[in-house]
Amino acid sequence: MRILMINPNTSEGITQRLANAARATMSADTVLETATASYGVPYISTRTEAIIGGMAALEILAERHMEFDAAIIAAFGDPGLGAARELFDIPVVGLAETGMLTACMLGGKFAVVTFAAALGPWYNECVAWHGLEARCAGVHMLNGSFSSIDDVQEEKSEQLIKLCNSVVADGGADTIVLAGAPLAGLAELVRDRVSVPLVDCAQAAIGQAETLARLRPASASAGSFRRPAAKPSKGLSTALAARIAHKTTLPHSS
Amino acid sequence: MRILMINPNTSEGITQRLANAARATMSADTVLETATASYGVPYISTRTEAIIGGMAALEILAERHMEFDAAIIAAFGDPGLGAARELFDIPVVGLAETGMLTACMLGGKFAVVTFAAALGPWYNECVAWHGLEARCAGVHMLNGSFSSIDDVQEEKSEQLIKLCNSVVADGGADTIVLAGAPLAGLAELVRDRVSVPLVDCAQAAIGQAETLARLRPASASAGSFRRPAAKPSKGLSTALAARIAHKTTLPHSS
Amino acid sequence: MRILMINPNTSEGITQRLANAARATMSADTVLETATASYGVPYISTRTEAIIGGMAALEILAERHMEFDAAIIAAFGDPGLGAARELFDIPVVGLAETGMLTACMLGGKFAVVTFAAALGPWYNECVAWHGLEARCAGVHMLNGSFSSIDDVQEEKSEQLIKLCNSVVADGGADTIVLAGAPLAGLAELVRDRVSVPLVDCAQAAIGQAETLARLRPASASAGSFRRPAAKPSKGLSTALAARIAHKTTLPHSS
Amino acid sequence: MRILMINPNTSEGITQRLANAARATMSADTVLETATASYGVPYISTRTEAIIGGMAALEILAERHMEFDAAIIAAFGDPGLGAARELFDIPVVGLAETGMLTACMLGGKFAVVTFAAALGPWYNECVAWHGLEARCAGVHMLNGSFSSIDDVQEEKSEQLIKLCNSVVADGGADTIVLAGAPLAGLAELVRDRVSVPLVDCAQAAIGQAETLARLRPASASAGSFRRPAAKPSKGLSTALAARIAHKTTLPHSS
Amino acid sequence: MRILMINPNTSEGITQRLANAARATMSADTVLETATASYGVPYISTRTEAIIGGMAALEILAERHMEFDAAIIAAFGDPGLGAARELFDIPVVGLAETGMLTACMLGGKFAVVTFAAALGPWYNECVAWHGLEARCAGVHMLNGSFSSIDDVQEEKSEQLIKLCNSVVADGGADTIVLAGAPLAGLAELVRDRVSVPLVDCAQAAIGQAETLARLRPASASAGSFRRPAAKPSKGLSTALAARIAHKTTLPHSS
Amino acid sequence: MRILMINPNTSEGITQRLANAARATMSADTVLETATASYGVPYISTRTEAIIGGMAALEILAERHMEFDAAIIAAFGDPGLGAARELFDIPVVGLAETGMLTACMLGGKFAVVTFAAALGPWYNECVAWHGLEARCAGVHMLNGSFSSIDDVQEEKSEQLIKLCNSVVADGGADTIVLAGAPLAGLAELVRDRVSVPLVDCAQAAIGQAETLARLRPASASAGSFRRPAAKPSKGLSTALAARIAHKTTLPHSS
Repeated sequence: MRILMINPNTSEGITQRLANAARATMSADTVLETATASYGVPYISTRTEAIIGGMAALEILAERHMEFDAAIIAAFGDPGLGAARELFDIPVVGLAETGMLTACMLGGKFAVVTFAAALGPWYNECVAWHGLEARCAGVHMLNGSFSSIDDVQEEKSEQLIKLCNSVVADGGADTIVLAGAPLAGLAELVRDRVSVPLVDCAQAAIGQAETLARLRPASASAGSFRRPAAKPSKGLSTALAARIAHKTTLPHSS
Repeated sequence: MRILMINPNTSEGITQRLANAARATMSADTVLETATASYGVPYISTRTEAIIGGMAALEILAERHMEFDAAIIAAFGDPGLGAARELFDIPVVGLAETGMLTACMLGGKFAVVTFAAALGPWYNECVAWHGLEARCAGVHMLNGSFSSIDDVQEEKSEQLIKLCNSVVADGGADTIVLAGAPLAGLAELVRDRVSVPLVDCAQAAIGQAETLARLRPASASAGSFRRPAAKPSKGLSTALAARIAHKTTLPHSS
Repeated sequence: MRILMINPNTSEGITQRLANAARATMSADTVLETATASYGVPYISTRTEAIIGGMAALEILAERHMEFDAAIIAAFGDPGLGAARELFDIPVVGLAETGMLTACMLGGKFAVVTFAAALGPWYNECVAWHGLEARCAGVHMLNGSFSSIDDVQEEKSEQLIKLCNSVVADGGADTIVLAGAPLAGLAELVRDRVSVPLVDCAQAAIGQAETLARLRPASASAGSFRRPAAKPSKGLSTALAARIAHKTTLPHSS
Repeated sequence: MRILMINPNTSEGITQRLANAARATMSADTVLETATASYGVPYISTRTEAIIGGMAALEILAERHMEFDAAIIAAFGDPGLGAARELFDIPVVGLAETGMLTACMLGGKFAVVTFAAALGPWYNECVAWHGLEARCAGVHMLNGSFSSIDDVQEEKSEQLIKLCNSVVADGGADTIVLAGAPLAGLAELVRDRVSVPLVDCAQAAIGQAETLARLRPASASAGSFRRPAAKPSKGLSTALAARIAHKTTLPHSS
Repeated sequence: MRILMINPNTSEGITQRLANAARATMSADTVLETATASYGVPYISTRTEAIIGGMAALEILAERHMEFDAAIIAAFGDPGLGAARELFDIPVVGLAETGMLTACMLGGKFAVVTFAAALGPWYNECVAWHGLEARCAGVHMLNGSFSSIDDVQEEKSEQLIKLCNSVVADGGADTIVLAGAPLAGLAELVRDRVSVPLVDCAQAAIGQAETLARLRPASASAGSFRRPAAKPSKGLSTALAARIAHKTTLPHSS
Repeated sequence: MRILMINPNTSEGITQRLANAARATMSADTVLETATASYGVPYISTRTEAIIGGMAALEILAERHMEFDAAIIAAFGDPGLGAARELFDIPVVGLAETGMLTACMLGGKFAVVTFAAALGPWYNECVAWHGLEARCAGVHMLNGSFSSIDDVQEEKSEQLIKLCNSVVADGGADTIVLAGAPLAGLAELVRDRVSVPLVDCAQAAIGQAETLARLRPASASAGSFRRPAAKPSKGLSTALAARIAHKTTLPHSS
């Protein structure tokens, strides 16, 4: 099985972290490839940046979807996920979605815990978009700045453990989703120091992508995620314009 | 008062329709200018196209926001609205938002009625994003294709009147929002043939933009729509990158 | 355009404050007249008083609605609003409704902030009646008594600023609706001292009344706000009984 | 135990029907007295009439509450119920409330079935006010006019049976609340002809009033139904003004 | 009228407390009998124990339902209530259900207050199952252990009073449901020391069982609580298997 | 990895169907074992039967959980799932839960489609228990009886395809969960004849059990699914009583 993990941010270091975490738990026969956005911001934390990252993710998928059995949009907040799901035939999942849905099977309510206050508004919109507010015990953020997005996991791990435990003690959370691509791989390092199960989003994502690919779901020809009819456009990337127009392009050739 | 109406679609004809409808009801001292997206699709009907249109709207705002007291993102579905609201200091409203909120003052529940089935999924997500599901009596679409987006209003007006009345007869709707930029100006032509009040989104939008501009709201320095901190980026339009980085660019000069 | 602002309380001083605030932002061609309830309480703060004030507002509207293009029920809590909307042909809006819906266009969630604990229960019911709970970050009240309802704004302004900022700091509110007719005009005086945009309900109301009047919505002949069929009554004011019975009375002559 | 049943409509015939139905199931030691509104409309079917009826109910309670252990506001829609509950010390219940809550103990979802389309909007608002939308499978009304409110029960009973059964067949309802004071006493006559349990609101109301009176609940000195502080008023009935002002009046002497 | 009160726990002492509280307020002509589970745990506090207690309650009902006009499942959390309601013809109510619905008639929102933290998760699920989350101001539990379930009421009464008052002071609760069979009878002892009305669940339950029995509701032949079709089984108690198979067994003879 | 699939019904034939479907998509290194309830009914379709089946599932888990990395309660409706999750240390998932959560990643709203009307009430409660009502486009059932539970899949497959397509055509569903253990394996046979993706619950369950086992979540020591404190009981199976009492029993030896 071949899975594409797309980092809609521009940080190659984060792409590596995500892939490492996913590879630690994926099936023996899964081949994981990665792609990193060529434009945008180092890490998505706002609604504006989610639009930019969503655009980048769609362009990457337009170029490469034909080579894979499933794809992961590997930023919490799932930029472009709904668009990708309507536009392409392979299963596409998001980091937030798979983290939250996996957490749902380990308890009643999950809390989302992340490393920076700036991420709150967009993460909250993401929970709502997924219709999971009834299962969510809040999005909780550390305050304060950090030195480097690549190393924020190490810098903040002690504070994150503390925040996780205080969120649980305040009531309402049965599990915790460690949110944000920079935190990939952290859950297994700190699992014994937090009072409820932790979900690593990269590991949840690879497991879910595998599960969906094995189900071999047929494409929708009806419903709200059926592929839209062909449409002309102007000014878009060659591959994306072709996909929207229902024209064929060769993979990697655009 | 100066207001910018942004059409995030590429159809100049629709831009003109929108402006005409708005000018028919705006205040004597309001100056309305328009802008049309330079890339994307003729009319937005999918999640994918909403990301593209949202990007286009943000780029236009980045270039021109300083010249205006308020702005309107003039496509139903409000592409890029949340992003625009967090990124810029002037009030920015959307066609869907203003149509629906205005309808709220004319009855309990509003129905959204539009001209093509393809618009349903994205319009439904828009209602949910605005937190207005408790006030919405459904999104209702005509089936069937149309000849030209520029003239769909004339082509479909009889069918739309019929659909409006049947939606009301089936129960639940106290008002109807005629949705989709191509329908701008229709409400006043058919108002006497529908059994509940109709809302013209372009006219609602200009009224709301004027009201907000007159309130002169202070910018948020807190809350989920405070302006995000400065951030580097790569590969974005000059004006948008500058706005994200908290740098100044001259209007129209990017 | 002619707009009637009805104060369903008996305080003439509050009527004056409301009109002053509205006149500061209304359109050049708008004529604003006011009316004050001849019976009831100085300011409405309970469910009981809302029934009394609603009755008073309906009687005033029954006498004067024919002279105006739109009307405002100028008490937060909107006593009698639903009744007025079903009974009369002109657009009628409420102070709470217009304040909250206007706030919706300046951010995601609004908090309601007011000057006395006694107002909480009724204001909360008002938010729910409007179906806006999904957008509301709570009704927040000052504790403690006040000297005079006419001057409570000046007496409490410092405490209100503090409460607004603490409500925002505690999280969840993107804007604040300054609630209660006695606070009309306060927003613009303190706008620079609160961390999110403030909405002045009297100014929101006049803007919304103008917008609705310009849309010239047709009367509903269907839906839950269609005018009820004629009915006999006994013991009601002449004008109200006539309106309920679908009989004509001359304006001002009852 | 002494219970007061208040008909906020002006129809004495309906008052009698209500009392007869209640007396058929009340406890041996309960004394039931009735009161009928001296002004207003023959039967409440609109938001406007609910304000009028609520005012009438409050005035009756102000005069007579001291003589009783509990009171019933005997119109579906419960006009003035919230106000009565905050203003008086004895338990006060409504016909709609007790019908719906009793139905909750006989199944999952209840449908509300009534005799005229005009009643729909106000009944729906009543369901929402009680926070029971999650338990309600809709408000269903007969179409068509009727000859006399006093005899509408007999005139429409066959149509009501048919509507009840079709509502259940269409799915979602486990019980049916026969709504509207004119239908008091009907449930037991037709119980064998409807496929789910029927609730007679007058009988539910007397049972609930008895249960509450036996619990002897203390008055609230906190919470949103605590008695409001004393307040001056003008132009109100003597007894109501006295109650609002925390002054004593002799029962029946106003 | 004959009513069966079933304690699905194994504590005879609690059964006695429940019966004493109910007898203090029941009607003169009501005969109350009790039954205590022969297997399971001394008091139900978890989801696991609720399944065990639900099974025990169903077995008792299968043996004895024919002797009674109504039955009460007398553990907060209402184990087996939905099953009992679909399987038997007499009205069956639960302690939680009747406590909460009765509280609904004394104010807007009720809080649930109980004596041990272990009860929280199951009680919260019970509130949700009843569709009463919109009326519930939270489930609040004492921390700390207790000496004996039979005497926990006396041991904890002072702490419970304190918790009730602090829950009200923190806002949102208009009434309090004292939850858990071991607290039966406490409400009337402490009613003057809590700032909002208290509901005794055993007393609410007996009142509701009487009210339902007097309504003599017909059995449902449709809806989601119609009696299921006959079905074979293996390994169940004689009476329960017979009831599921639509076979007759003699009361008390299994 | 070792996974236990528990059929809480007594039909061995269904157990075999479930295992076959799961084995078709599980990972190469997964070992799947099965267990079938020794008492209860051939297939669970009511609330009563869900309690019985939940009891049976808990007893099986109490005996065998120590041998496995994860377990599946393999009946749609997930009898005993919440109890199992709080009582045992390994991940336990349900057929309904995993079918619905997997469907969430293939579209916005899923419909549940099953083979008999009797299943509706319990399945609807299951959707609500999981907090997934916001994602569910209804539970849809075939009418009519069937010959044998073991062969109902073959008997009804044409009718089920038709129902699936009509549910989608009526709007609202993006995916379909084929619900009920007897339908295991059907999805891949009919996938090309239904207009939206189908989810096979047995295949979703095995994928989710594998994903959770690979995450190796720590046990909760806090939150609503922490293991309850030790408690005495009487009359329960040896293994279940031991687990509740925090005592050790040897696997398979009870």
